[in-house]
Amino acid sequence: MWRDLLPIGRDGRTLGYRRFAWTSADGDCRAWFKAQAQTRGLAYEEDRNGNQWAWQGNPLAGEAIVTGSHLDSVPDGGPFDGPLGVISAFAALDELKARGAEPHKPLAVVNFADEEGARFGLACTGSRLTAGKLTAQAARDLRDADGVTLAAAMESAGHDPMAIGPDPERLSRIAAFVELHVEQGRALDELAAPVGLASAIWPHGRWRFDFHGEANHAGTTRLEDRHDPMLTYANTVLAARKKARVAGALATFGKVSVEPNGVNAIASLVSGWLDSRAADEATLAEVVAAVRKAAVERGERDGVRVTVARESFTPVVEFAHDLRDRLAALLTGEGARTAVPVLPTGAGHDAGILSEAVPTAMLFVRNPTGVSHSPAESAAEDDCLAGVTALADVLEGLACR
Amino acid sequence: MWRDLLPIGRDGRTLGYRRFAWTSADGDCRAWFKAQAQTRGLAYEEDRNGNQWAWQGNPLAGEAIVTGSHLDSVPDGGPFDGPLGVISAFAALDELKARGAEPHKPLAVVNFADEEGARFGLACTGSRLTAGKLTAQAARDLRDADGVTLAAAMESAGHDPMAIGPDPERLSRIAAFVELHVEQGRALDELAAPVGLASAIWPHGRWRFDFHGEANHAGTTRLEDRHDPMLTYANTVLAARKKARVAGALATFGKVSVEPNGVNAIASLVSGWLDSRAADEATLAEVVAAVRKAAVERGERDGVRVTVARESFTPVVEFAHDLRDRLAALLTGEGARTAVPVLPTGAGHDAGILSEAVPTAMLFVRNPTGVSHSPAESAAEDDCLAGVTALADVLEGLACR
Repeated sequence: MWRDLLPIGRDGRTLGYRRFAWTSADGDCRAWFKAQAQTRGLAYEEDRNGNQWAWQGNPLAGEAIVTGSHLDSVPDGGPFDGPLGVISAFAALDELKARGAEPHKPLAVVNFADEEGARFGLACTGSRLTAGKLTAQAARDLRDADGVTLAAAMESAGHDPMAIGPDPERLSRIAAFVELHVEQGRALDELAAPVGLASAIWPHGRWRFDFHGEANHAGTTRLEDRHDPMLTYANTVLAARKKARVAGALATFGKVSVEPNGVNAIASLVSGWLDSRAADEATLAEVVAAVRKAAVERGERDGVRVTVARESFTPVVEFAHDLRDRLAALLTGEGARTAVPVLPTGAGHDAGILSEAVPTAMLFVRNPTGVSHSPAESAAEDDCLAGVTALADVLEGLACR
Repeated sequence: MWRDLLPIGRDGRTLGYRRFAWTSADGDCRAWFKAQAQTRGLAYEEDRNGNQWAWQGNPLAGEAIVTGSHLDSVPDGGPFDGPLGVISAFAALDELKARGAEPHKPLAVVNFADEEGARFGLACTGSRLTAGKLTAQAARDLRDADGVTLAAAMESAGHDPMAIGPDPERLSRIAAFVELHVEQGRALDELAAPVGLASAIWPHGRWRFDFHGEANHAGTTRLEDRHDPMLTYANTVLAARKKARVAGALATFGKVSVEPNGVNAIASLVSGWLDSRAADEATLAEVVAAVRKAAVERGERDGVRVTVARESFTPVVEFAHDLRDRLAALLTGEGARTAVPVLPTGAGHDAGILSEAVPTAMLFVRNPTGVSHSPAESAAEDDCLAGVTALADVLEGLACR
């Protein structure tokens, strides 16, 4: 399975993946998914929001146990973030078959469309639409860096953008969704555990900071006559780190855009995107308010106007405790929690989006370096196999007993 | 004259100019130049390096008095930087004719190609080639952001890139080059003078700082596990401003490039371009060394490797004192320097490039806000007319007496 998927959408220079939603690389990944379904005699379907499903048993019977993740990537992403969950899902079905397990409930593997939001700026578009957390029109109007709308991109990929929208009937047929994902930190490594369970997803959001200055000649404008927004931006980047450290939270400026972006021109506008996350919403709000205050105060010194817009926000997600306890019991045999660590994560996932409508849980596979969203992302083969075994145990427990 | 030139290459949103070398906007400006020459019965020619010339009198007679500037722009530049010098040159010839002046020497208006270097990253390409300060092969190999070489761009604009190279014979026919330019600071405004003379161009250069970190997930990577080059970049921006202020120099980061530039990804690489200038080369070297030291030291704290490459450097240019004194005398009637202020500038110009091979001088026209390299750049009509009168006085004095 891995061999066919590995070369798709890989950049020859960085060796990172560039599988952006509704591009040809994404289309190749989707064709791979369909072929995996067909090879196993699973019923393949694409739902109204472009999510792919492969069913074992009657899709309409209800009480379905669903597993899967996503196949798209961030810019220069690694091979595991997303694909490990889809591949492990198919492998777990194979494992159940090898065990001779006889599920009483329908099983499905799912590939959610556009999880990373790398192209249109909004994460988890496929699951958000399905859960009714994003309106069809707002989704259609999303634009990529070239101005192409999501609607146009879906259409050119052969998917009808007018069909998208909430899908409560589909969700009502699901008893549980379990997403396996490579860990994106080093907690499991420090606990020497190959597999863990998620307790919660930290609340997180994206804020766009616009620093409005005045373009001018870098070679002739006296320092005291400048309104240089790069200075205000720079000070805000350092302030964000400091505020996050003090609060035990995370804050990152990873994306920046400059106008006119000329070597000998003082910038007229610097836009920087703040990604911030914390264990609870009050702390997150405090951190963002503190960063904004630092930006505005420094802007007054620099003669730079600062505006801040929240581009996305996801509240804290507590995964269903019943399901989590059941999974912990299934994975340890005797219900002893210690063998399978339970940890929170700062990363958003489709499982988080669906958690209000459907009982969801997540399994993490150890990441020895903690590196993710990078070509250097890694996971040991033994740990990936342990993940498949754990996922098969969970599916067997939920669908066969 | 202005009316025909104003709409060319203007961005509808920013109202700034985007007249980049060898693009269609540049071609339209060049067609305008040719039409202005032909309207006046001036002999039009394009030299081997793509610079445009309009001759009054015999181009081969020698001892020519040349004036002009450039028509290309920085990204979102203003209407005066460059074009004011070319338009004033044609207007000054008109003025001489109206005065009934009878030049003994040939006169020429010139439009130097690719002065701003906005597309291929190197300023004053046309004059550098002519003066032998840039080899033909190095010029042909310059690439724009899309990877198009200067050679390909020239060729598609109908100019033979194999013809470019030094042109000492042409320079030997020139007795003086006088460039009129809008001032790019507020010195004349503070002196309440509509026109000034240049004394020198500050030494200046461009340095590329690469901050090498490690891409990772912004939502899951602990602050202490990060190698975030954005922090090192931000600290360096602030350090550059401080070092420049202390040294009485200029230092600007106006251009930045980030990989992968994703909202939820810690950057793997941030590249920032430092533009720095000072009154003398020792001070400039000190400032750049101090900024580099600050970057490397902060990089050690952040786990970020810093590399610095000098991309261009122009030594101090002292304009010919004889010519400058002659111009001052011509402009004041009695040789009293006070009426025409003499000032240095931080900006590079074609006049600076040519100054080793040909006696050169520069006239500046007052800029009430000092703003340049911006759509907000301005100059009063009366001051522009004063500039034309001054340029006509100078040409008359140099060519008719």
